Amino acid sequence: MAKLYFRYGAMGSAKTLNLLAAAHSYRQQGKKVLILKPELDNRFGNLKVKSRSGLEKDADILIGPDTQLTLDHLSHLNGILVDEAQFLTPTFIEHLQQIARDFDIPVICYGLRTDFRTQLFAGSKRLLELADEIDEIKSTCQYCNKKAIFNMKLVDGKASLDGPNIQLGAEESYVPACASCYEDRVRGMKSSKSRRAVEESEAVVATI
Amino acid sequence: MAKLYFRYGAMGSAKTLNLLAAAHSYRQQGKKVLILKPELDNRFGNLKVKSRSGLEKDADILIGPDTQLTLDHLSHLNGILVDEAQFLTPTFIEHLQQIARDFDIPVICYGLRTDFRTQLFAGSKRLLELADEIDEIKSTCQYCNKKAIFNMKLVDGKASLDGPNIQLGAEESYVPACASCYEDRVRGMKSSKSRRAVEESEAVVATI
Amino acid sequence: MAKLYFRYGAMGSAKTLNLLAAAHSYRQQGKKVLILKPELDNRFGNLKVKSRSGLEKDADILIGPDTQLTLDHLSHLNGILVDEAQFLTPTFIEHLQQIARDFDIPVICYGLRTDFRTQLFAGSKRLLELADEIDEIKSTCQYCNKKAIFNMKLVDGKASLDGPNIQLGAEESYVPACASCYEDRVRGMKSSKSRRAVEESEAVVATI
Amino acid sequence: MAKLYFRYGAMGSAKTLNLLAAAHSYRQQGKKVLILKPELDNRFGNLKVKSRSGLEKDADILIGPDTQLTLDHLSHLNGILVDEAQFLTPTFIEHLQQIARDFDIPVICYGLRTDFRTQLFAGSKRLLELADEIDEIKSTCQYCNKKAIFNMKLVDGKASLDGPNIQLGAEESYVPACASCYEDRVRGMKSSKSRRAVEESEAVVATI
Repeated sequence: MAKLYFRYGAMGSAKTLNLLAAAHSYRQQGKKVLILKPELDNRFGNLKVKSRSGLEKDADILIGPDTQLTLDHLSHLNGILVDEAQFLTPTFIEHLQQIARDFDIPVICYGLRTDFRTQLFAGSKRLLELADEIDEIKSTCQYCNKKAIFNMKLVDGKASLDGPNIQLGAEESYVPACASCYEDRVRGMKSSKSRRAVEESEAVVATI
Repeated sequence: MAKLYFRYGAMGSAKTLNLLAAAHSYRQQGKKVLILKPELDNRFGNLKVKSRSGLEKDADILIGPDTQLTLDHLSHLNGILVDEAQFLTPTFIEHLQQIARDFDIPVICYGLRTDFRTQLFAGSKRLLELADEIDEIKSTCQYCNKKAIFNMKLVDGKASLDGPNIQLGAEESYVPACASCYEDRVRGMKSSKSRRAVEESEAVVATI
Repeated sequence: MAKLYFRYGAMGSAKTLNLLAAAHSYRQQGKKVLILKPELDNRFGNLKVKSRSGLEKDADILIGPDTQLTLDHLSHLNGILVDEAQFLTPTFIEHLQQIARDFDIPVICYGLRTDFRTQLFAGSKRLLELADEIDEIKSTCQYCNKKAIFNMKLVDGKASLDGPNIQLGAEESYVPACASCYEDRVRGMKSSKSRRAVEESEAVVATI
Repeated sequence: MAKLYFRYGAMGSAKTLNLLAAAHSYRQQGKKVLILKPELDNRFGNLKVKSRSGLEKDADILIGPDTQLTLDHLSHLNGILVDEAQFLTPTFIEHLQQIARDFDIPVICYGLRTDFRTQLFAGSKRLLELADEIDEIKSTCQYCNKKAIFNMKLVDGKASLDGPNIQLGAEESYVPACASCYEDRVRGMKSSKSRRAVEESEAVVATI
């Protein structure tokens, strides 16, 4: 039984570059690998899987509402790599889990954990429920040197909580942030340290 | 800024023993630590935090619908440990995240990832969205030697998908399972290997 | 093929408690598990495997210079757990790796990474070379809230770099420390922050 | 205090690509990062840091026997990335640890764990002793679908244990392998499964 992997990371954590590197390694070893991406993500042209670093490759399959992998796809296959997996449907993720489990083909899904309101995407949720291995691809906060865990939406350079949670083609308006910098900018609060000094004498209940 | 940790594991993965070990280490170093548990979990008496291995300790605070930690609790505090964190409300988890972030107190939450229908608990969901670090506490499947990732409900020794997702005091009826053994028992299917041999010539679409 | 695991942690990180928890889980599932410990470690009586939290159990086998596991030991065995693995010989670790690989029995070794002079133990070195999985069991520094990565030797309450690297029965004289607190105490240096302010204008070459 | 990271992986695990991705992320955020590599590694021209996937960048500093980073290097620096860190001297790794600890600059070292005889390199050894975080960059075995943990040397397509442990410019003669495939090819043994069947009745002592 092969495993279903979820490798999650914030915006700009080089998830796609990791996927392309994995694809490269498989192929260098003479192994057959399929690259999938959701139809939804057509920022770079339908089939393009493109890393911000410049590296790119074409996906083998675009996943639409009715896509199912067939024995033709799975025959002699050594691995499946999925880009932008947060946009997959729960049903397709169950399909991938079944392939890993019953056909002994490792499936590695790369994607965001949460949207800019810190809510799981539908695909991320099902992956966090079903994955055999959950790994983080780390990156640093846009504003400090701590690890980024959230994705902040910027409209005209200011943090925003408005709009739909899927809005592609506007990648430049999302930045990775740690919990403090996210809170500071989204809630318009002062930095936690200055707050702490100020509020030391007040009830937590009041400040929360 | 301290971190919010989610250490998840299947039934029987010694999550509570890990919590008690962490509490012991803190106290051995002369550090102050708070142990919390949801009011809901009253299997062993209201305050008892009890590992299946026999070790136990009293929780300092039972978390009810209106519980909020105050400055009295947080003053000179070095850590917060939470048992059965899957049963917390999203609101209380946001409260914990704020404490880690703004009061620089590490918060370590131990809990199940999913219920016996492979769905996230409300508490696990919010933790998977907000945690700075997500770690797995590993254990083995009840039926084979692979890693357990799911929790299976047994009624009269048989896998079941019926009933509410929170049912305490009946701990003996949940067992840890890997994806294959879960599938075999819950769906009543044959083992993946024999299936594979049989179905090699059929369309995946048909078999899934 | 099963795996060889090395779960390393500093003094007081509850390694032994983790081992006892794993043994408990195996046995609760009706699985057969062997607990091994090096003969060398006779602090608690020859066979005793004892956690600082109070929990204890007898080891099944004491590993001496000529110990080899036989088919009698390995027959119907589901797992091998090793306490204080840093004291094993490289040869015995190769023996364990072979058992995991050729007999499909997972071997989980718990031990320290380095001695009080930040040098690998002979057993830890071979484990770090051969292990399929290397996991950290985390704990906090004795002096601050950061993660402990080193073990500091205390003689009359003061950090020391003298003496043999194996000295058992004197457990109270070792404490876990982060890199800063270790450096401060072992080298007698000021805290890195004050140093930094002072030396900001000097060449690093001179200060290192 | 920032951390010293060791991200180890077998040949072909895209360590360099990970480094280049990290450098890209830092610079995209307007942060200053230094890329270092040992002088020793001059396969692609002295300064070139080149991934097998095609991506490449120039290193900022070549580390020779007397290299020390100065305040000029460290001023306003947000991160240090080191390629082929297994070839560093223990002294230089202590230098890097000091920079992370005292100058609050994260240092991320990428490198091999062991040579083709499964022995730690001098640089890997010191990193495994001092690193605050040890992470694995995973890749698959050249011969099967399991995780690669060793590096096998091939001479005329056959596994070899001869020669110096540093031999650059001949990259094509090293391949990643799991423990079983390494053993099978290096020791010329049969696969563990067939061995097991044959030897079931013999003493392990005799077969090991």
